[in-house]
Amino acid sequence: MKLAQLETPCLVLDEAKLERNVARMRARLDRLGVALRPHLKTAKSIDVARRVLRRPDDPITVSTLKEAEYFFGHGVRDILYAVGLTPNKFEHVSALRRRGARLSVILDNIDAADALAAHARKAGDRIPVLIEIDCDGHRSGIAPGERALLEVGRALAEGGCELRGVMTHAGNSYNQDCVEGIKAMAIQERDAVVDSARALRDAGLPCPVVSVGSTPTATFAEDLAGVSEVRAGVYMFCDLVMAGIGVCTLDDIAVSVLGTVVGHQREKGWIIVDAGWMAMSRDRGTMKQKTDQGYGIVCDAQGRPWPELIMTDANQEHGILALRPDARGCLPDLPVGALVRILPNHACATGAQHPAYQVVRGAAQEISAVWPRIGGW
Amino acid sequence: MKLAQLETPCLVLDEAKLERNVARMRARLDRLGVALRPHLKTAKSIDVARRVLRRPDDPITVSTLKEAEYFFGHGVRDILYAVGLTPNKFEHVSALRRRGARLSVILDNIDAADALAAHARKAGDRIPVLIEIDCDGHRSGIAPGERALLEVGRALAEGGCELRGVMTHAGNSYNQDCVEGIKAMAIQERDAVVDSARALRDAGLPCPVVSVGSTPTATFAEDLAGVSEVRAGVYMFCDLVMAGIGVCTLDDIAVSVLGTVVGHQREKGWIIVDAGWMAMSRDRGTMKQKTDQGYGIVCDAQGRPWPELIMTDANQEHGILALRPDARGCLPDLPVGALVRILPNHACATGAQHPAYQVVRGAAQEISAVWPRIGGW
Repeated sequence: MKLAQLETPCLVLDEAKLERNVARMRARLDRLGVALRPHLKTAKSIDVARRVLRRPDDPITVSTLKEAEYFFGHGVRDILYAVGLTPNKFEHVSALRRRGARLSVILDNIDAADALAAHARKAGDRIPVLIEIDCDGHRSGIAPGERALLEVGRALAEGGCELRGVMTHAGNSYNQDCVEGIKAMAIQERDAVVDSARALRDAGLPCPVVSVGSTPTATFAEDLAGVSEVRAGVYMFCDLVMAGIGVCTLDDIAVSVLGTVVGHQREKGWIIVDAGWMAMSRDRGTMKQKTDQGYGIVCDAQGRPWPELIMTDANQEHGILALRPDARGCLPDLPVGALVRILPNHACATGAQHPAYQVVRGAAQEISAVWPRIGGW
Repeated sequence: MKLAQLETPCLVLDEAKLERNVARMRARLDRLGVALRPHLKTAKSIDVARRVLRRPDDPITVSTLKEAEYFFGHGVRDILYAVGLTPNKFEHVSALRRRGARLSVILDNIDAADALAAHARKAGDRIPVLIEIDCDGHRSGIAPGERALLEVGRALAEGGCELRGVMTHAGNSYNQDCVEGIKAMAIQERDAVVDSARALRDAGLPCPVVSVGSTPTATFAEDLAGVSEVRAGVYMFCDLVMAGIGVCTLDDIAVSVLGTVVGHQREKGWIIVDAGWMAMSRDRGTMKQKTDQGYGIVCDAQGRPWPELIMTDANQEHGILALRPDARGCLPDLPVGALVRILPNHACATGAQHPAYQVVRGAAQEISAVWPRIGGW
């Protein structure tokens, strides 16, 4: 089967680039002497996971209990569910644990800790918990130095849960516009959890796990002393947001959306393709970056980019391709029926729109495999 | 089963509002004396379709061949696939037609017409085709008065396809900021296809179908003389983009995302919920409207909105709820574990993130049914 035989749109994954991205991150973290707990919310595929994990039961991170179910069903056991746990998921967590999953969870406040501890006692399930630390003010978590940390730690440890440690995610690393900014974020991220771990230990509470994670900070961190594990996910595939902040090059981007030219509006310089926002997602993550990539950079069927050709607008099943306003070149000749591959702003969001990966290697047009992926909750 | 027993996030559909929206559009188009060919790209569910269609084999519109397959598999036969057909889908179209689907397609250029006619002759399949007309410059189509119309019409009619007529979609009606603007768009949309139909007929070509469609123009059109059918989809559910341009009220919005409070950042006035952009989609369709609704307006579990409380930012599985900058009221007291329902910017995009509808009626918290929905291509 060749790309040209597929119905479009569909999601293409370049396995050679995936392997290269995976090996690069592994080598980095090995040099830094820290474990990797890859975040599989980007990939949502056991076939990708098998290329990311060294051993089938290596630790992973997930963003939904459906991912936890799925990966556990495929033999992964050590799973961190890295979204603050709500009471309507307590029983599901315990059910997975009774089946043998070494599932751990996170939370960041005393109400959630008390509720989970009450469930743990009732269910007879000493659920392992990491306390979420807020390293950069972008979302959830207890800020380093806040008194709530010890209160939550004690409620968990004394209430019937297993206090495993602390975790944080430097979400603001995505908003940096230079490598120096990301390096500073990596230090801030590390210090936030290392300081919090020290506060717990000083209070006589256990804290074996000190977990950080974001693809930008994992890519540029220089010293992770005191950190026990790194979570990262986007690095496997990379995307235009990552390229825009210097984490990868366009050539590292392993996923693209295959589309077909439907028609033209020649006087406007538009090429219309059958891949719209349903195929790309509505993610416009490069909008606030130095270079706005619209809905994505257009490549030929071999994956070679025309860096001046982007998807400037999208309807549900239509994409409008046009040259950037400042382009110096000409519109490539793409007749009706021509195939293009569009590099996404955000691999997590674009991946979520598709039921499977069509796997290729490099510029080869041959589909070597179709890897299903999951969605929903 | 009650809302409070669900794991969140999930998609809630208020069947009473759906029925009301469906009845209102039917009554409008009956008064205007024009047929309805509902667009099922918003709903992607046979259970919704059954509440929209008067008879099981009423005509429908779809945006993917997967939708065509799915609805045909459930007994719908008269299906318009309303995205310009690419050659890699010709065989799929003919396969569906051989199985008994009365599937028609669209295109807007001579290359596509010649290619489809060649396929039609080879396959012995007189595929019915509508020519797409560009009524407002927003996307695809042949502008009214362009010579290409007759050229394409002849290539189809003489080449082996069945020339069925013309169709257009007033996509720019979504960008109007007042009802008068939408009414003007409805006239422009109608005139574009009625004029094009006349040009085809004057040239001796058949044009039984004259098709228009968008929820805003269908809601405010006052005279559809010469139009044979209206396609619209979002009207079934409504959403904040439609409310922002006066097509519906907040109370008409039939879909919402159910989420649970995970925690707070109290000094910032943030409530964190377990519904992020994966549950809401990345659609920010109200961003350019008079009132930016962020990622959606927050309601209580009964569906009653706090109009000043919106999802101001979203990560993959986290939503940040906060008061609008100009809010006069206070943040409602929403403890950890509290349920909220979030009205979406764009029903098509939010629906696409979910595998099913949890069906309720009005403020009742009881789930009366779970309706699966499809995705992908």
